[in-house]
Amino acid sequence: MKFVYQGKTKDVYALESGNYLLKFKDDVTGEDGVFDPGANTVGLQIEGAGQAGLRLTKYFFEILQEKGIPTHFVDANIENAEMTVRPANVFGKGLEVICRYRAVGSFLRRYGAYAEEGQALDGFVEVTLKDDERQDPPISAEALHMLGILTLNEYDELKNLTRKISDVVKTELAKKGIELYDIKLEFGRDAEDNSILLIDEISGGNMRAYKDGEYIEPLELEKLMVQ
Amino acid sequence: MKFVYQGKTKDVYALESGNYLLKFKDDVTGEDGVFDPGANTVGLQIEGAGQAGLRLTKYFFEILQEKGIPTHFVDANIENAEMTVRPANVFGKGLEVICRYRAVGSFLRRYGAYAEEGQALDGFVEVTLKDDERQDPPISAEALHMLGILTLNEYDELKNLTRKISDVVKTELAKKGIELYDIKLEFGRDAEDNSILLIDEISGGNMRAYKDGEYIEPLELEKLMVQ
Repeated sequence: MKFVYQGKTKDVYALESGNYLLKFKDDVTGEDGVFDPGANTVGLQIEGAGQAGLRLTKYFFEILQEKGIPTHFVDANIENAEMTVRPANVFGKGLEVICRYRAVGSFLRRYGAYAEEGQALDGFVEVTLKDDERQDPPISAEALHMLGILTLNEYDELKNLTRKISDVVKTELAKKGIELYDIKLEFGRDAEDNSILLIDEISGGNMRAYKDGEYIEPLELEKLMVQ
Repeated sequence: MKFVYQGKTKDVYALESGNYLLKFKDDVTGEDGVFDPGANTVGLQIEGAGQAGLRLTKYFFEILQEKGIPTHFVDANIENAEMTVRPANVFGKGLEVICRYRAVGSFLRRYGAYAEEGQALDGFVEVTLKDDERQDPPISAEALHMLGILTLNEYDELKNLTRKISDVVKTELAKKGIELYDIKLEFGRDAEDNSILLIDEISGGNMRAYKDGEYIEPLELEKLMVQ
């Protein structure tokens, strides 16, 4: 097993089988000790955050697998906070695909002149570049295409997959009386056949969820969903 | 004649005919005394800037009129730095539509991880919201539609008109050996029939133009083009 990359909340190792191992850490994105799923910095450490994130990720990835939605998930070892995944290549230097059911976070910071906080957005999908230095700028389908990051067909597929996956997560949360406000997904091209796969994770750190109008912290969400 | 609005570089008056009068001022956008067409603040005053801006605007609007491209232009009085225009309503609180032939300015600030300074962009069109407080955020066709700012058909028309108009400007500049890098246009709905019109102005303050690899200041551009 060979160390290949240190992420903000996960480390990545290459396995001899050709698959990769993601080691979930207890680091959480945010600023000044406050969790923020939109943040680009590690704001705090919470013991057990890695395991809890993986537990929820496994839960969702297995549901997606059953529904025939392509993901990089192979299996998970909760105790070690490790997930085995198939190899995939990100688009360009990485994209984040956001599905929004209510206007909060960066959407509101950008379009607050036209939207009220918490306003319904009906599964609106947008893409941002993973680029800490440039604050993850939003980018249109046409710009992605022009810059050679993905094709317009791939964009449409990305958008459709994002809607489908987000709706699955929204439905699962709703079963526990929790409302999904927004969720951030990552995709890659399957290293073998270039087909599009959901990669990374689906945990509390990727989404904003509310219960009875109150925001639920990632660890609390993971407890509500999988314990 | 009734004063209705004070803009950064123009004041607007209502005429009894139902038309409007735009009074071009000598104020120029920029920061700390340096011109920047992308800036949201008035950075400096240059004597004669208003007249020069109007002279170039008249020049381009008359060419567009001949080509049957709809604009709000009625006539211009250069001496008084005044332009008479037909009434039009902006989209939402106003949009800027940018056509890019080379990567500079905010495009490079956002997408610099994928583009080099000065790289050819082949008439790439993007829309930003006029919103000083939120630094004129870029916005996609889908977000514009969802937020009720314009329809997807209107977006397509806006994009086609932007390409057409920008190509006219590019061609005119090229006749004097000048290269257009990018240009910022504004559009509105005709107050009578809701058809889309080019509004505002087309002057040195709306574009970045280069000659022999050197950036040309707006006033210099206006001299090169119409004197």
